[in-house]
This record gives sequence, C-alpha cells and structure tokens, in this order.
Amino acid sequence: MAKVGQHKEKKTVITDSFWSPLIELITKKTIPYQWRALNDEIVGAPPSHSVENFRIAAGLSNGEFHGMPFQDSDVAKWIEAASYSLMHFPDDELEGKIDQLVDLITAAQQEDGYINTYYTVAKPDQKWTDFSHGHELYCAGHLIEAAVTYYEITGKEKFLTTVCRFVDYIVSIFGEEEGKRKVYPGHEEIELALYRLYKVTKNQDYLNLCKFFINERGKQPSFLSEEVTLIGERDRWFGLDYHQAHLPVRDQKTAHGHAVRAMYLYAGMADLVIETSDSELKGILEQLWHDVTTRKMYITGGIGSQGHGERFTFPYDLPNDVAYAETCASIGLMFWAKRMLEIETDRSYADVMETALYNGVLSGISTEGTKYFYVNPLEVVPAAVEHRYDHKHVEPERVSWFGCACCPPNIARLITSLGQYIYTIRETSLNVDLYIANETEIEMKGTKIHLGLNTNYPSTGEVVLDINTEEKVEFDLYLRIPSWCRNHVVKVNEQDVDVEFDNGGYIIINREWKRGDQVTLSLSIEIEKVRANPLVRENNGKIALKRGPVVYCLEQVDNGQSLSNLFIHRHAKPLITNEFNSFEAIEIKGVKIDETTWNGKLYSSDENVFNETTAKAVPYWYWGNRNKREEMLVWIKEI
Amino acid sequence: MAKVGQHKEKKTVITDSFWSPLIELITKKTIPYQWRALNDEIVGAPPSHSVENFRIAAGLSNGEFHGMPFQDSDVAKWIEAASYSLMHFPDDELEGKIDQLVDLITAAQQEDGYINTYYTVAKPDQKWTDFSHGHELYCAGHLIEAAVTYYEITGKEKFLTTVCRFVDYIVSIFGEEEGKRKVYPGHEEIELALYRLYKVTKNQDYLNLCKFFINERGKQPSFLSEEVTLIGERDRWFGLDYHQAHLPVRDQKTAHGHAVRAMYLYAGMADLVIETSDSELKGILEQLWHDVTTRKMYITGGIGSQGHGERFTFPYDLPNDVAYAETCASIGLMFWAKRMLEIETDRSYADVMETALYNGVLSGISTEGTKYFYVNPLEVVPAAVEHRYDHKHVEPERVSWFGCACCPPNIARLITSLGQYIYTIRETSLNVDLYIANETEIEMKGTKIHLGLNTNYPSTGEVVLDINTEEKVEFDLYLRIPSWCRNHVVKVNEQDVDVEFDNGGYIIINREWKRGDQVTLSLSIEIEKVRANPLVRENNGKIALKRGPVVYCLEQVDNGQSLSNLFIHRHAKPLITNEFNSFEAIEIKGVKIDETTWNGKLYSSDENVFNETTAKAVPYWYWGNRNKREEMLVWIKEI
Repeated sequence: MAKVGQHKEKKTVITDSFWSPLIELITKKTIPYQWRALNDEIVGAPPSHSVENFRIAAGLSNGEFHGMPFQDSDVAKWIEAASYSLMHFPDDELEGKIDQLVDLITAAQQEDGYINTYYTVAKPDQKWTDFSHGHELYCAGHLIEAAVTYYEITGKEKFLTTVCRFVDYIVSIFGEEEGKRKVYPGHEEIELALYRLYKVTKNQDYLNLCKFFINERGKQPSFLSEEVTLIGERDRWFGLDYHQAHLPVRDQKTAHGHAVRAMYLYAGMADLVIETSDSELKGILEQLWHDVTTRKMYITGGIGSQGHGERFTFPYDLPNDVAYAETCASIGLMFWAKRMLEIETDRSYADVMETALYNGVLSGISTEGTKYFYVNPLEVVPAAVEHRYDHKHVEPERVSWFGCACCPPNIARLITSLGQYIYTIRETSLNVDLYIANETEIEMKGTKIHLGLNTNYPSTGEVVLDINTEEKVEFDLYLRIPSWCRNHVVKVNEQDVDVEFDNGGYIIINREWKRGDQVTLSLSIEIEKVRANPLVRENNGKIALKRGPVVYCLEQVDNGQSLSNLFIHRHAKPLITNEFNSFEAIEIKGVKIDETTWNGKLYSSDENVFNETTAKAVPYWYWGNRNKREEMLVWIKEI
Repeated sequence: MAKVGQHKEKKTVITDSFWSPLIELITKKTIPYQWRALNDEIVGAPPSHSVENFRIAAGLSNGEFHGMPFQDSDVAKWIEAASYSLMHFPDDELEGKIDQLVDLITAAQQEDGYINTYYTVAKPDQKWTDFSHGHELYCAGHLIEAAVTYYEITGKEKFLTTVCRFVDYIVSIFGEEEGKRKVYPGHEEIELALYRLYKVTKNQDYLNLCKFFINERGKQPSFLSEEVTLIGERDRWFGLDYHQAHLPVRDQKTAHGHAVRAMYLYAGMADLVIETSDSELKGILEQLWHDVTTRKMYITGGIGSQGHGERFTFPYDLPNDVAYAETCASIGLMFWAKRMLEIETDRSYADVMETALYNGVLSGISTEGTKYFYVNPLEVVPAAVEHRYDHKHVEPERVSWFGCACCPPNIARLITSLGQYIYTIRETSLNVDLYIANETEIEMKGTKIHLGLNTNYPSTGEVVLDINTEEKVEFDLYLRIPSWCRNHVVKVNEQDVDVEFDNGGYIIINREWKRGDQVTLSLSIEIEKVRANPLVRENNGKIALKRGPVVYCLEQVDNGQSLSNLFIHRHAKPLITNEFNSFEAIEIKGVKIDETTWNGKLYSSDENVFNETTAKAVPYWYWGNRNKREEMLVWIKEI
C-alpha cells in the first residue's frame, strides 16, 4: 500500500472562448475516440492492440503481443488524459472504464511488481536487457504519471498502489547503492514521473531514483554502447547523443538527439532544480534553453528538424518541408518551459510555451478532434511527400491513428491539463503566464484567493483579472508582457498604477489585494512580419506572418497551387479579415509568377511576368482542416 | 574467333585550349592513377580489388572476392579509357598493361564463355539468379565496350574474341527463341554495347539480342518482381520503375527510376532507331527527351534528383542541396544526346550534350585529375552534409576513390573519347555540334576531307573551320547556333553567305566545298541571368549565372560564409573578370544581410540591415578545387 499524502484536486475551470470548446471536444469526442482506438474499434486505423496486450499479460485473453515495445504507454497516457477530463466533465461511465483498466493493469502486474506487456508476453526472458529501445522505464514513467494524475483527480489509491509496487521493485534493482545496476532509460520520461510520484507520496526513494537516473546518464564509457554491441542491433543504433548519453548531463550545454527524449530529460532535470535548488544544473538548463530556443526551434515551437532519428541536427538547421517537429516534442517543450517558469520568472519561458501551444502542439489535432499530425512541417508540397524518400515522414493530411501512437493521447492529456499552465504561484507572488480565461482558487500566505480571468486573447489583447481574497493580503502580481507586444496598458480598479517592469519581461504590481480588486491589462496585438536569423538558410528573403502568439500559413485552398511561387510586396500591410468565426485570417498584397508565359520551358533568361494577387493566411494550427493533400507554406517570399 | 570487320581508327586530334590539357591530364595522370587504384595501390582510398578479383577468378591468386557485384566494370571502363588515350598519346607500356589485363580476363573466362569474377569467385552456383542487382549483363556490357574500343584503336583482336565467346554464350541462353530465358538486365548497358559489337562484327545475333533485351523490358507481369519475391531481398528492391521495367519500353513516355540505368537504356533504344529507323521508338525517345530535359534536369545537365534510388522523382522536383545528379548520369545523358543527334539534327540534343559536358560531367573530376565527385549538388552547406541524414550521399569535397567507383573511369573514357562528340556525319551533310578545336579527316561522297576547327570557345564565340577537300564536293554544312546565342555572324572565305536557319537550330551552308575553304562563325557569348520554371519550387526568386554553356556558382572562398544570405541586385549587370587563366570569372553587385545586427536572436520583426557586396562567381565545374568542405551555391537570390 502506497503511503500517500493528501490528494489535491487543482481544479481550474477553463472558461475560454478559444480553449473551452477544444477541451470539451477532447473530452466528449477525442477521449472516447481514442478509447475505441486503443480497443481496435476504429475501422481503417492501424490497430493499437494495447488494451488487448494487457488482457493477454493478465492471463485474461490468449494471443500474441502486437505493436511497439512501448505500446503500454498509449494506455497510460489515455488514462492520464481521461483523468484530467473528469475534472472538466465528471463522467461515471468514463471513470468506470479507467477503474477497469486499473484492475487490468494490476492483474497484469508480475509477482515482483513488474509491469510491461511487451516483455511479459513477448520476451519474458529478456527483461532489462535493451535499455536503448526496450522502453520499460519509459512505459513505467507513463504508468506512474497516469496513476498520480488519477489519484490527484479522484483520490482513488488503487492505481497508485499498483504503480508504487512496480517502482519499489525498480528501486530495488537500479540505483547508486552497491549491488544495484548502474543504468538509465534509453528514452527519458520516468525521471519527471518519479518526481511527481515523490511529490504525492513523499517517498524519498523515488526522488533518489530520479536523481540517480539523471546523474548516471552519459557517464563514459556508456553502458548503452556496450549493450548495443551485445545485442548487435546496430540498425536501430542512432548514437549515444540520440539518447542524450554522449556526455554526463552536467556537461551537456547544447541540445542533441531525439527531441522528445531531450525534452523529457530536461523537464526531469528542471524538477530536480525545483526540488534541490541545484545551481549547477540550473545553469546547464539555461544553456540548453538558450541553445534550443535561439538556434534549433521552428517559429511554431516545433523542434527536431530531421526525420531520421526524430532529432536535433545543428544550429540554425530548420528546413521547412522536411521538418520533423513532432507534436510530442512541442508538448515536451511546454513541460520543460513550465518547469523553467517555476524556477524563474522569465517571459522567454512563457513565450515559448505559448508559441508551442498555439502552433506546434495545436496543429497536431484536427478541429474535429479525431485526426492527428505526428509531424508538423512548415511547408507541404504533396507531390514531394508522395514521391521523395526524404519526405517519407511527412503526412500531407492528418490521419486517424498511428502504428506508433504517442502523439494523440499526449495532446489529449496536454489540453485537458491546460489549467496547470496559466499561473505560477510562489510564496509571496503570483504570475499570470498565459492569458487563458479561467476561474480558479489559490492560496497565498494562508489566504484563499479566487481568481477570475476573462479575455478573448489572442483575438484581442484585453485581459480582465478579478482577484477576490478572503482577507486582505499583500503579494506581487506578475503579468507577462509577451516579447512581441509593443504596447501595454495596465490598470487596477480602473486606475493607472505604478508598475515595475521586470527584467524577465513581466510587470509587477505590488499591493495589498482585497475582495473585488480588478486588474485590466491591454496588450496591443498587431500582425508582425517576422524574419528568421539569416543563418537559417531556408528562410532568407522570406517572412512569416504572426499575430500575437499565432503563426500563420498560406494554404492552397485559399491561394492556389505553387505557393513557393508567391511573393508578398515588401511594404504591403497585412490586414485582418473576419470570415472565420474562431480566428482572424490575414490578407496581404503580393504577386505570383505567371506560369503560363513559360510555355513548357525549364530554364530561360527572359524576365518573369508577375500577376498581382492577394495572399490569404490562416493560423498554422488550422491548416489541413478544409482541404486534403494540398500545399501549405509558412515562410513566404518577399519581393 | 570473332568475325570482325575492318577496324577503324576514328582519330580526331583535339587541339583545344580548354580540352587538350584535360585530355593530357587524364592520359598522363588520371589513367595511371586509376590503374594504381584498381590495383589497390592508392594509400587512403577505398580498396578496389577489381584486378585482384580477376586474378582469383583466373586461379592465379588465392583469396576472396571483394567489392561490389559489378566491380569488374571498373576494369572494363578503365581499359576503354586507356584505349582511347592511346589515340592521343601512344604508349607501349600502357598498351602492354592492357594486353596483360586482356590475358587475365581471358584466363578468368569459364569453359562456357562466362566472365564475371563476383559470381565465379563468390557465388558460383547463383549465376543468372539476380537480375535486379547481380549486374552480370551490365558487366558484360562494359567488357564488350572495352573490347570493341581496344580493337578499334589498336586492331588487336584477342579481347574481342574473348568477349564474343562470352556474348555467344549469352545469346545461347537468353532471347526470344523458344527455350531461351525471357529476361533483361536490371541495370541496362549491354544493349548499347551489343549494338557496338554488332557494328564492328556485323554479327546479326548481337543486334537481335540487343533488340530482345529492349523489347522484353517491362512486359508484365515482370520477371523482376517474381525474382525479388524468390530471393527475398526486399530491402534492395526499389520498385519496377527503378529498373525502367514498370511498362514495356514502347509505353514509357516519362523518365522513371535510376537515372544512369535510364540513360543507358535510352541510348540503347536510340541505337536501335539509328539501325532500324523504328519510328515508334523514335517517337517514344522524343517524349522521354522532352520529359527529362524540360522537367527533370538541373541547369548543369545533372539528372536524378534523389539520393535514395539515385533516381528521377517527379516533374520539376530539382532540389539543389540534396541533388544526386550523378556524374555517370550526366555522362549517360551525353551518350543519349549524341545518339539523338545521329537520328535527327536538332540543337536541343547538342545544347544539352554540351551543358552536361561543361558542367555536370566536368565537375566530376578535380583539376588535378585524381579526385572525383560521384554526386554533383547545386548547393553545398558543409554542416548539412555532415549532420543531416538526407544529405548523406553528398560529399563536400572530391574524394580519391569510391567503394562504388563507377564515375572515375567513366569520366576518363568520356573525356578521352571526346572527339566522337564534335561532328555528326551523314551521307550528304556534316554537322558541327560542339565547338571544340580539333583536326580530323572524314569522308563525304567518297571524298576525303580534312577538317581543322580552331576556336577558344567558350571563352570567345569565334570559330574558324578550315575545310580541305581532296576533290570538290557538294554537301550541307550544319553549324549549331546554341539556343542561348542571341547573335551570330557566318562567313565563307571572308564573304557573307546566304544561309538557311533550320528548325533544328542549325544554320546550313550548301555549296561545293573545295580545298582551302574557310568558314568563320562568330557567336555572341554573353552572361545570362537564367531563371527556372516557377514550378521548380527551390528556385523561385533566384537566378543562375550562365555564360555560353558554362554555369557559374558562388564559392565561400570568394564570397564568405552564408551564401544563401547573399542577394544580387535585380538590375545589376554581371561583369567578366580575368583573374583566372583557364576561364572567365564573373562579378555582380548585391547585398548580404548583416548577421551581426541579429545579436543571437532566432526570430525578429525588425527590418534586416543589408551590406553592399560584390559577388564573385566561378564556373560550376571548377568548384571545390581551391577550398575544401566549404559552401557552394548555383541559384542566387535576387533582391
């Protein structure tokens, strides 16, 4: 039986005109859809088999394991998403399904506490032999996160108890103590999960194991290199840096390897800094943050610019059409950013978190909630996707499911837990990091405070924050001024106030807050023409349209074919059009080369004939929802 | 014993200021260097083992086969190149080496006539089982070409006799007659070689086998699909179209698959048209030519725009940095173009042949003659080559040798046989297709004519052709006016003459020619800013500099780093500079984005600061000869 602390239901009610419908969609449609996917009930989608794998492992069904070695994690992430959704829309039937799954997972648990259907069913004598790609600790991490979340939302302890038995077993065989194996996961995830488990159970062993996995990583010679030699699967070997194991983590100053792995590691490292105030590790994370966000990040918050290895490559290497920019990697970037914000109030963390959310994450799911992008390129030419081998990871339309289905449940758990990303609460201060309308209750210096945030952001920049304290209480209110915002006006109770503008890009209002206080913030939101650093060789001579946090793109359905052949006038002013309900579209004047004058020639020294045109841009997250297998383009040429 | 016709030594003495030094370099340095490479004597180069393979197959040495299944073809191509070189520089020692090789090849011949060291040594019981990748017929083709060439140059019959024994054996097992196997090579080459062998031996069997291989190709269901199922090597299976076997050749209207394979096939098909005047096949070739040269060809004459499968992709898909554009494919394009010129006088064939020669072929060899490019990209960023998996086929500098060494001896045989590409001789007409200075003797209507062509082309467009006939003889002289040439002036014996300007882009001078006649042609050669069809999405908004047939490029050594960040002024006039001896360089005014103003930001809505600059361009073939592992760029942005 797990020793658990008080379960905490951090209920934040999202009341946002942009996000609430999506949370409802994900709760009412996506989560039930994914349930059916996990149970192989979606016609035409690749079978998941992941629930059936648990049945087989539990001895309740006969058959063979199917799917990826990490198939269990899809179930775990779904439980986590479904648990979060109960916060928004309590649902006994859904809760019953989760309970059944918990029973099933518990039934699939081995005598010693071990849980993993792939190894239990398919490779029972090969447990803990393949850390590079076996994903046992990765799946354990997701089970831990699911159990912690379900406990936090419902207070039910069974899943947590099951998972603690598993983790106790893991603690008994891995760790720095003599006689324990000196290993670490080939795919990070358990680190941040162990920290969550520690926070809810206060069991020091879990924190110690988290520390061990992080500090052990990258010690040379690496056991991962020895392991791959041993099992001889060199075709799956992408190098130590793919696993962030090329150097001890405290010597890693630049981001390498598989982007999702890196994000989960950095998030776990940040958890340790939050817990231990380890300033050395904090410095490393700041360097890694700088490297990722100023050298290796798409304007959409996408990261990982290569399909092979789903990985970081080299600084400023950000090709648009063969981008990987996995949905999960942008989600991981949000996890990391949120933790960096916990460590230090700096808008660079919140700006990136918001960029990823409104672009690289949100593009991962269709407006219908049941189709997904794994890869989020910034330019799509369907013929290239169809014919070119170096585009083979790109899908020109969202699909129903994936053989490797990490992204769909990941986006579901992210959106249903969005309330966690709005505020950062410290002892004597409160940050508003994201402007998403919500109602919530916090505690400051022992005083309960009801917060009500109203806004249509990012349609407009008008934000109203109602602060209702039980008793008068003094604290610093930090309001983020996004780096793209050129003007802002802040008032308290309709009066101008003196504010400090912090180095970190937040304005700070210090006062004794009382019931009925109202802060209004007006952020100017203008359409920007954004340029990329000239070292990003793909984007020289091009601009991207951005309005607030929202990156725009051109779609063939609005602009015809050959988007790469469209140039916007250098001095043209972009204008908003309101033809869509849920967002602003943008129009801007430009030209397109007249293809008809070419008469079938391939090369010519004749001047081009240009036709005037008006380019129409829609938010990047929206692309591919009206049309299928058509062109899309973020970075537009100027003339 | 082969029944051979009169051997013909078509000796054309190249006297060209541009090409003669290269022919001498290849003869004196490259061919001896390649001899040492084939004998594994080059320190640091991948071992070839190809001569040793013959020794082992002949029972003269012990050991195992090493190298590609088609390793024999490197020896054959070297013999062909070395034979051609004897025409320019007779060399008893070299001829002795060839004779030794011929003895060795003959000694390696099996009882039944079979020659292939890979199968003889490594897979004796698997002969004729793997047509997709076994390359037995491909290697046979190169042996045939080598033997024919050596016979034509020296009159020695031994090699030809050996090869005819081999081909007679092939004829006995493959063909349309009942009881013979209905197959065709997975890599074309033997078709055009059989035609050459037929032309020199007049043996109808060889022509019939050539026809059979061409007409059998692509019949469905394909034996190649059945074979791959049988041998189960699906990882090496690139699809039927990779082998131009997706349709019967007479239904192939667009170019598909492996570019070298396609070129060798089309050249063989063209041979059949030359021989048989098959108008259906001629029509197909014209459609294929149109597809390749107006939709799938780099401005350099490079073809095959994808590394994976070294193949054609889809129309207008011509990425610069991940181009394949294999040296051998451009050589193959020249083979095909030359044969199309034989079929019909049309400058489109000669223009493309010349473009490939001066750019995509010539770039394949260093100015020192001993380093080679296999892949000829139009943009190189060394960090991308180093780090990006989709660039892994690109080398940022020429290398000493390749594990798969098809290109080095191929370029050697092409350059040493350049005399074959200058003229096309018909019954009553003579074309000058390429302006390369030379002395040669032809026959027209039974009259011997000595031709002396003098020019510094393409440095200048001044061409002087001395025509010395033994007796007066009337014929049409066709002089190509390249499609890029805006003005030309032609005179005979310093007098203006009436000329016809043919649809095919040639001017025609009909007269009774006599001893001492002199034709002067003045072609205007200007620097052009060439644009690509707007459907080539990589090149919109960019120009390439071209002067006559020579494509130019920017190199980092002249223009600093970040070439993608250089823009030339839309109305800037390119100027010639004469700082190099062997070619004209070009300067043109432009700007570069000031990278220093970015201060480490990745994205910004600030305007860029531009610094004025003068871009310096050098011929594309020259790139990478001064600097190593630096940037190069053909298509330059305009502003």
